[in-house]
Amino acid sequence: MIDFLKKLAFDAGKIIKEYFYQNVNVYHKGKIDLVTDIDVKVEEFIKLKLSDNFSDVSIVAEESFDGNLNFDKAFFVDPIDGTTNFVHGFPFVAVSIAYISDDRKIGVVFNPILNEIFYAESGKGAYLNDEMINVSNTNDIRNSLIATGFPYSSVERNIDELMDILEKVLKSSRGIRRAGSAAIDLCYVAKGVFDGYYETGLKPWDIVAGKIIVEEAGGAVLNKRGEVYNFSDDYIVATNGNITNELLRILNGI
Amino acid sequence: MIDFLKKLAFDAGKIIKEYFYQNVNVYHKGKIDLVTDIDVKVEEFIKLKLSDNFSDVSIVAEESFDGNLNFDKAFFVDPIDGTTNFVHGFPFVAVSIAYISDDRKIGVVFNPILNEIFYAESGKGAYLNDEMINVSNTNDIRNSLIATGFPYSSVERNIDELMDILEKVLKSSRGIRRAGSAAIDLCYVAKGVFDGYYETGLKPWDIVAGKIIVEEAGGAVLNKRGEVYNFSDDYIVATNGNITNELLRILNGI
Repeated sequence: MIDFLKKLAFDAGKIIKEYFYQNVNVYHKGKIDLVTDIDVKVEEFIKLKLSDNFSDVSIVAEESFDGNLNFDKAFFVDPIDGTTNFVHGFPFVAVSIAYISDDRKIGVVFNPILNEIFYAESGKGAYLNDEMINVSNTNDIRNSLIATGFPYSSVERNIDELMDILEKVLKSSRGIRRAGSAAIDLCYVAKGVFDGYYETGLKPWDIVAGKIIVEEAGGAVLNKRGEVYNFSDDYIVATNGNITNELLRILNGI
Repeated sequence: MIDFLKKLAFDAGKIIKEYFYQNVNVYHKGKIDLVTDIDVKVEEFIKLKLSDNFSDVSIVAEESFDGNLNFDKAFFVDPIDGTTNFVHGFPFVAVSIAYISDDRKIGVVFNPILNEIFYAESGKGAYLNDEMINVSNTNDIRNSLIATGFPYSSVERNIDELMDILEKVLKSSRGIRRAGSAAIDLCYVAKGVFDGYYETGLKPWDIVAGKIIVEEAGGAVLNKRGEVYNFSDDYIVATNGNITNELLRILNGI
């Protein structure tokens, strides 16, 4: 199945790349959560291919989510993670596709602009463009590069907490990066570019594939209490496994 | 001269790219301002080529700056803008070379990882990989993507002001990006990816080339009071020319 999903991500990525440098019709979902015609088009393309080939597997996808997250087997699809980047031409956009069942997990994240495909299957390691990747071995947060995001909902809901945490991370680490795609941020933790990543208010399709890739690269994906992250958690915290305690202390204000 | 500088940036970029995925010896300059062996090596390479070919032009370069900024004609060289990215493998690193005399300004910024070369000469427009580029036409900050940075010196010196401004920009705009290279942030304003950019505590070699490229792409590069930016200014503010007043109001807390 992983080869099928890689091919599907490549094909979906072709559509994204084709429109990347063009102007697209943008309308608004909420205040500033951008959706584009292309987003819907790419999702329809992926869903059709999945349902044609795996009719017994449920599909959870961003633009057509009905609230149900209880399945034996499901695909999780984010057609364009980083829609603001897509609209503005910042090269961090990705197709994110995951498959989850009781005994098998697969994650594929493809950035068609930088031509980087990350993928992992439970128990088989994580890869970027067919080379195995691993998290960094940094063990001091002072030498760490930390990624984060500011989802629109969080900016409106708990800006004070976001700013407090950001200030502490800035003072404690080597630096912050805000690239605008949760899926790619997670893959860059898996690759060892970022030593840690945290964000709040994300949706399952933003992070399922990236979570599998981080875990298979030797990292940890947790909630704010240090337990394995699941969909009902607000905060997601991904690390190389070495700086977890230090990052969790900052996030919990202790 | 511009062809010479483009070739020089390409050749320097080759050295950077060669080492990008390797581990490099890192030591510390100040608290977390990273310098690498490669940084020094690339600067020596560029300076040698410049002094061999333009012996009458002064050279102002990051790793060998003696405090003098008064010249009739000078090159400004940042061998690796984005050294933290370079060390961690985040693909926003650039060679930045500028030439300034009374009647001529040239800026060249090359990102060897993404293979993007931005360049401009006064009065002749701005280019990315030989295609002319222009700033965006966004005229409402609510639809703007804004880039910024957090230099180490500023984090130690005026973190409260940085956080106040960041919070206001987050609430007012479509989003913030923090990619970690001032030279590339400026070029992305020139290209219309970012609608605005601000940062404090930068050095001349970080921004001279990018400033010329933004101006030739139709944008504005100012200080916090809205005057044309010069080296003695703390804040640099680059915009597409349309959102200047809104961004300046935020930066000035009014």
